[in-house]
Amino acid sequence: MTTTVFTRKDGRATDELRPVTITRRWLDHAEGSVLISFGRTRVLCAASFTEGVPRWRKGSGEGWVTAEYAMLPRAGSERSGRESVRGRVGGRTHEISRLIGRSLRGIIDVGALGENTIALDCDVLQADGGTRTAAITGAYIALADAVAWGTERGLIKSRAGRPVLADSLSAISVGIIDGVPCLDLPYEEDVRAQTDMNIVQTGDGRFIEVQGTAEHAPFDRSELSALLDLAAAGNAELAALQRRALAERADGPVTVSSDTGA
Amino acid sequence: MTTTVFTRKDGRATDELRPVTITRRWLDHAEGSVLISFGRTRVLCAASFTEGVPRWRKGSGEGWVTAEYAMLPRAGSERSGRESVRGRVGGRTHEISRLIGRSLRGIIDVGALGENTIALDCDVLQADGGTRTAAITGAYIALADAVAWGTERGLIKSRAGRPVLADSLSAISVGIIDGVPCLDLPYEEDVRAQTDMNIVQTGDGRFIEVQGTAEHAPFDRSELSALLDLAAAGNAELAALQRRALAERADGPVTVSSDTGA
Amino acid sequence: MTTTVFTRKDGRATDELRPVTITRRWLDHAEGSVLISFGRTRVLCAASFTEGVPRWRKGSGEGWVTAEYAMLPRAGSERSGRESVRGRVGGRTHEISRLIGRSLRGIIDVGALGENTIALDCDVLQADGGTRTAAITGAYIALADAVAWGTERGLIKSRAGRPVLADSLSAISVGIIDGVPCLDLPYEEDVRAQTDMNIVQTGDGRFIEVQGTAEHAPFDRSELSALLDLAAAGNAELAALQRRALAERADGPVTVSSDTGA
Amino acid sequence: MTTTVFTRKDGRATDELRPVTITRRWLDHAEGSVLISFGRTRVLCAASFTEGVPRWRKGSGEGWVTAEYAMLPRAGSERSGRESVRGRVGGRTHEISRLIGRSLRGIIDVGALGENTIALDCDVLQADGGTRTAAITGAYIALADAVAWGTERGLIKSRAGRPVLADSLSAISVGIIDGVPCLDLPYEEDVRAQTDMNIVQTGDGRFIEVQGTAEHAPFDRSELSALLDLAAAGNAELAALQRRALAERADGPVTVSSDTGA
Amino acid sequence: MTTTVFTRKDGRATDELRPVTITRRWLDHAEGSVLISFGRTRVLCAASFTEGVPRWRKGSGEGWVTAEYAMLPRAGSERSGRESVRGRVGGRTHEISRLIGRSLRGIIDVGALGENTIALDCDVLQADGGTRTAAITGAYIALADAVAWGTERGLIKSRAGRPVLADSLSAISVGIIDGVPCLDLPYEEDVRAQTDMNIVQTGDGRFIEVQGTAEHAPFDRSELSALLDLAAAGNAELAALQRRALAERADGPVTVSSDTGA
Amino acid sequence: MTTTVFTRKDGRATDELRPVTITRRWLDHAEGSVLISFGRTRVLCAASFTEGVPRWRKGSGEGWVTAEYAMLPRAGSERSGRESVRGRVGGRTHEISRLIGRSLRGIIDVGALGENTIALDCDVLQADGGTRTAAITGAYIALADAVAWGTERGLIKSRAGRPVLADSLSAISVGIIDGVPCLDLPYEEDVRAQTDMNIVQTGDGRFIEVQGTAEHAPFDRSELSALLDLAAAGNAELAALQRRALAERADGPVTVSSDTGA
Repeated sequence: MTTTVFTRKDGRATDELRPVTITRRWLDHAEGSVLISFGRTRVLCAASFTEGVPRWRKGSGEGWVTAEYAMLPRAGSERSGRESVRGRVGGRTHEISRLIGRSLRGIIDVGALGENTIALDCDVLQADGGTRTAAITGAYIALADAVAWGTERGLIKSRAGRPVLADSLSAISVGIIDGVPCLDLPYEEDVRAQTDMNIVQTGDGRFIEVQGTAEHAPFDRSELSALLDLAAAGNAELAALQRRALAERADGPVTVSSDTGA
Repeated sequence: MTTTVFTRKDGRATDELRPVTITRRWLDHAEGSVLISFGRTRVLCAASFTEGVPRWRKGSGEGWVTAEYAMLPRAGSERSGRESVRGRVGGRTHEISRLIGRSLRGIIDVGALGENTIALDCDVLQADGGTRTAAITGAYIALADAVAWGTERGLIKSRAGRPVLADSLSAISVGIIDGVPCLDLPYEEDVRAQTDMNIVQTGDGRFIEVQGTAEHAPFDRSELSALLDLAAAGNAELAALQRRALAERADGPVTVSSDTGA
Repeated sequence: MTTTVFTRKDGRATDELRPVTITRRWLDHAEGSVLISFGRTRVLCAASFTEGVPRWRKGSGEGWVTAEYAMLPRAGSERSGRESVRGRVGGRTHEISRLIGRSLRGIIDVGALGENTIALDCDVLQADGGTRTAAITGAYIALADAVAWGTERGLIKSRAGRPVLADSLSAISVGIIDGVPCLDLPYEEDVRAQTDMNIVQTGDGRFIEVQGTAEHAPFDRSELSALLDLAAAGNAELAALQRRALAERADGPVTVSSDTGA
Repeated sequence: MTTTVFTRKDGRATDELRPVTITRRWLDHAEGSVLISFGRTRVLCAASFTEGVPRWRKGSGEGWVTAEYAMLPRAGSERSGRESVRGRVGGRTHEISRLIGRSLRGIIDVGALGENTIALDCDVLQADGGTRTAAITGAYIALADAVAWGTERGLIKSRAGRPVLADSLSAISVGIIDGVPCLDLPYEEDVRAQTDMNIVQTGDGRFIEVQGTAEHAPFDRSELSALLDLAAAGNAELAALQRRALAERADGPVTVSSDTGA
Repeated sequence: MTTTVFTRKDGRATDELRPVTITRRWLDHAEGSVLISFGRTRVLCAASFTEGVPRWRKGSGEGWVTAEYAMLPRAGSERSGRESVRGRVGGRTHEISRLIGRSLRGIIDVGALGENTIALDCDVLQADGGTRTAAITGAYIALADAVAWGTERGLIKSRAGRPVLADSLSAISVGIIDGVPCLDLPYEEDVRAQTDMNIVQTGDGRFIEVQGTAEHAPFDRSELSALLDLAAAGNAELAALQRRALAERADGPVTVSSDTGA
Repeated sequence: MTTTVFTRKDGRATDELRPVTITRRWLDHAEGSVLISFGRTRVLCAASFTEGVPRWRKGSGEGWVTAEYAMLPRAGSERSGRESVRGRVGGRTHEISRLIGRSLRGIIDVGALGENTIALDCDVLQADGGTRTAAITGAYIALADAVAWGTERGLIKSRAGRPVLADSLSAISVGIIDGVPCLDLPYEEDVRAQTDMNIVQTGDGRFIEVQGTAEHAPFDRSELSALLDLAAAGNAELAALQRRALAERADGPVTVSSDTGA
């Protein structure tokens, strides 16, 4: 990996991820669960296998995957009001929940699920930028465990030799900070970014979702290209870590980490 | 413009926009207003200049631009429930409202507004795909008229020779239909698209927002590139039409159309 | 028509309607649709034929007609908050929705509908007084078109030679301005009126709904009588215009107007 | 009083009120309170004097009168859901609350109140038709007591010799049952009525509100006239009973009744 | 009964109840109803027998008892906002509703109900402390009448000689005021109490619910003991009064009172 | 400690706590934070110091302590709906939030806080009975850390030598299982308990809150006494563990556990 002369506050190279830690089976009840951290950002992802599908899908013979993202009130540096108390889900919450669900549906064969639903709950316990990308990266593992759970019980059946999950899935943020493209932005960089993108990719590097926003200045085609390159490298690292986590065969919680290889 | 052998249901070439019609000043009260149609899709955009800013912005000396998108119950081919009656705004509505507001803030100097807000209401009267792109394209003109209104009254003051609006703004959808990249998808194509993107660009062709979603199959870098090319050409046409609409000096409603040049 | 020496701000005689324009089939999808204007007031009325009836009516063999009235945020001279965003429908909105539904049910044979519902959506695009009366007057035509649509498809069947719609229906406002009874009040007169009535009448002049309110001073029996006379004449004119609109046999949108007879 | 050959289920003449009972000062805390019954219909009306006015009225120097109507879940023959539990106020509730508030504002000089609000809570403890008319008739007395309370404390000051309350106020329902105009409909008649009106009148017989609805058949001018005559006689009786109730000088609760004159 | 030298504002002994009045069958429609007062506190309790049970209980063959507690806006010394208007039920309301339902379920054999629900509505018409205890004490009688109603009609059937209601149920508040344990606190004492308990007991003196809260100072075991003694005596008196009320065989409303024995 | 011959499913003695683990400073941002587990039950408690007090307390010079309890959707063995999505906070959630806040206010001198608020967020990450007691026990430590934080910065000032926190606070559940009083019930025992109590006590053993409910059979005075004894012993153990946790002087997260003494 190359490094640049540009210095990031936390000392990372522009193409360097924050330390990533994944604890699989953090919960006892859920069919799949992961506590994932990207630096200080910590997200608890739980996959719940439930019978039945939303009304509009009944009779289709196919299943559904849905996701709900939320942030605990004191996840950030200041306390924010609880959405249940306010009585409504905010636009940002809605937007990210939809992104996670759409991304996961991009790799699963819903026909294999039968008329069952897998619900992914991604709750941000602590927030320091990149909460949606950590959520997607963790949710994929929780989903994989729930699919294994359902397959063992004969509730999920792969069709015609086609795998239930076509590929793995991870996500990372990239952005332009003071003119320099950077990988995996913490909150402090996120608010300063001229352009901010979230890139969801499959294990083989194809795109599931590309979302780029010019926060302070429009971006051109070559900047877009540089950001996509950075994201591809970051997602490749995350995919490798996901493979390591899913290779663990122990019964209880297992933790893998980008730092130590442990 | 090039044409392809691939045939679209409505007879258009893959790089051809639907007929676009823009009626400026469709409303009598609003500081800026546009009725815009992309084919059968019709969106009423109203810009309201109001004193004051959201609470978290008070004392900053800067203004704000916000947007609310909504669809009338019978905009589509079937009636859908009214969000006011259901008592909550849906996730899709939230997501699009946020996209429109964010895009418009990408071209305006909020410092020039003083502590005032311009609210853009984009109400879809009829829906046939591309409602968010029509909304952004129309909202830009309504915003430009509201900025002119405020500037005439001394409520908006450009700073240091810098224009209040840095550039124009338009949006268009692109997608891959049966393997072929196509411009400006109507509803019938939208539901069949493997990949679906919405691209918001400034008049000079830079990006404000890039949102691409793999609906049925992941997409690769070359497909992404082809879609961006199509969108760039489409947005260039829309920018030209916007310039024609804004050049009209009449007092009452004026209409420009991509078909007739009228 | 008689004129009086009393001068209205817009130059009309006290018994004179504002210009009324009705565009039938303004929408492509709805079973019936009308864009109607009373002066600057513009209401889009859409009739949707849907299978099924509300729960409390199931098994009755009879259908239902319901209405929802709403105002776009920038319909008026100042922007008002969106009811979907506030999370609740206001009292005025509820009251007018109920009035429209009740009025339309006054002329239709719900037994002819079978267990189907026709929903009328009346959305005020621009408001300048008389929005509820324009809504009722337009909704009748949209309803008539939806009934014709259902009859053609055998979904609606008149019973025993009795027409599905017993008569036409229109509504107009009347009020006492500076002591003088006036027809069809614009917003400016509405706020000044001592007494304000909305009168819904059938084509043969009988009453479906009479709602009179003393805003600043109680009214006596003779004033009530004068207002009813004015309303009867206004509704007769509207009924004639409705007949002209419904007589048009063209396929696409058709417009009739009180001004030109066009 | 005249009687007719037409027989009502409860044996009343067509122009006869149900027994009316008014208990003034039923509550210990409220500035004015009444428990009123029209037959089986029982409504508790409480007037609360509170400092301040709604935001849109601040700085006007004038006060406000507002009303909230509601029905206990088991007021009727079947239990209905609680609006607080459903999370929203229904359309009927909104409509009647607005009617009561508007009617009371029709007789009070809001300028005399200063920037204070009198809130009338009308809670239906038992419902058997005519709940809104009983509410208005009772609310007037509670309002009169609250005005007296405020006047004694110097919080309300009549202006230029003009009384704070211009006149008394009462309301009664009338309707056409089997072709016969009848006064004061219980629930059983209300659901059968072809036409149903609620008439709010001042003590001197002028109209504050006239609301007539054709439920099953349109009504003509002569029917309207007969109904107004019936209502005028009924309201005159209610006004006399209100005068008797307000003439009582005792400190605790006092009850007057149409039956016994007690 | 013993008295103490400590003087309560209303002159009662520390172990003395306020005057209690119970009017049974206060409503005409409800299957059971009671207007109960503890001093100035007045609660209307209505029991509604309805077919069916909540979804999670379907197919169990057992019934359900539920309760909803609410306070009218002007029950207290100042007007409070209506929960239906605010759009949500407050925490205190929820808490008390749950307490009442739980308590009543503690004495009823839900198996005897079949799949039917008895809903208790406890609406506070006037509040002066002890509203939840008055509600429980009154609700028991309304429930007993509804059980009798259902038993007469064969809708409720006792099982194996076991009574449908195992015992009677009443509740009373106790608290420590200026260091002295007192029975049945009015509002004025309630706000000053160091410790405040609500004790729900069966007719034979066993506990259904014990809720004690240290408001200003923790309490020890001996204080707890003294409070339980006071409550036991108070609940015994209430149970006796309930027996008297239920012994009345008249058809219409009957009233019993702790003062007069009437 | 004594043991009994009665066997609990998890092998504990009737007077034995489940393993308790407390990790202090689990979060980086919050002024105080604890991850606490009682067996499988895991609750994250965060204390947030915020300027200002609720409106009704303004101008009092005193502060406020409030709490919000919530459960993640997949905390339990089955997924439950998210309260933010349902748009309302459930009764159980309200009840427990109120209990936690009330308990904490029982030991703090709100006068020392000035007009500031400390908000405790108690989010159940995994639920297996005793979530409210774990929440209170953990919240006390988070509160103590937030008080220390505020005291160091001069935002909190003890008054007249009186400590800001009068004592420590913990809570434990007790219940009667198959006739045997038991300490600290997991979910499996909780649903079977005849009687279920939650006891909140100060470090010196006095009561802050006593809540006992007869779930299937009323309880008598001697059973109540046995339960209080069990709870007192359990709370004494928790108080000792809390002291150990608060004695740790390290900067980062520190964990103490009842098992190992580590």
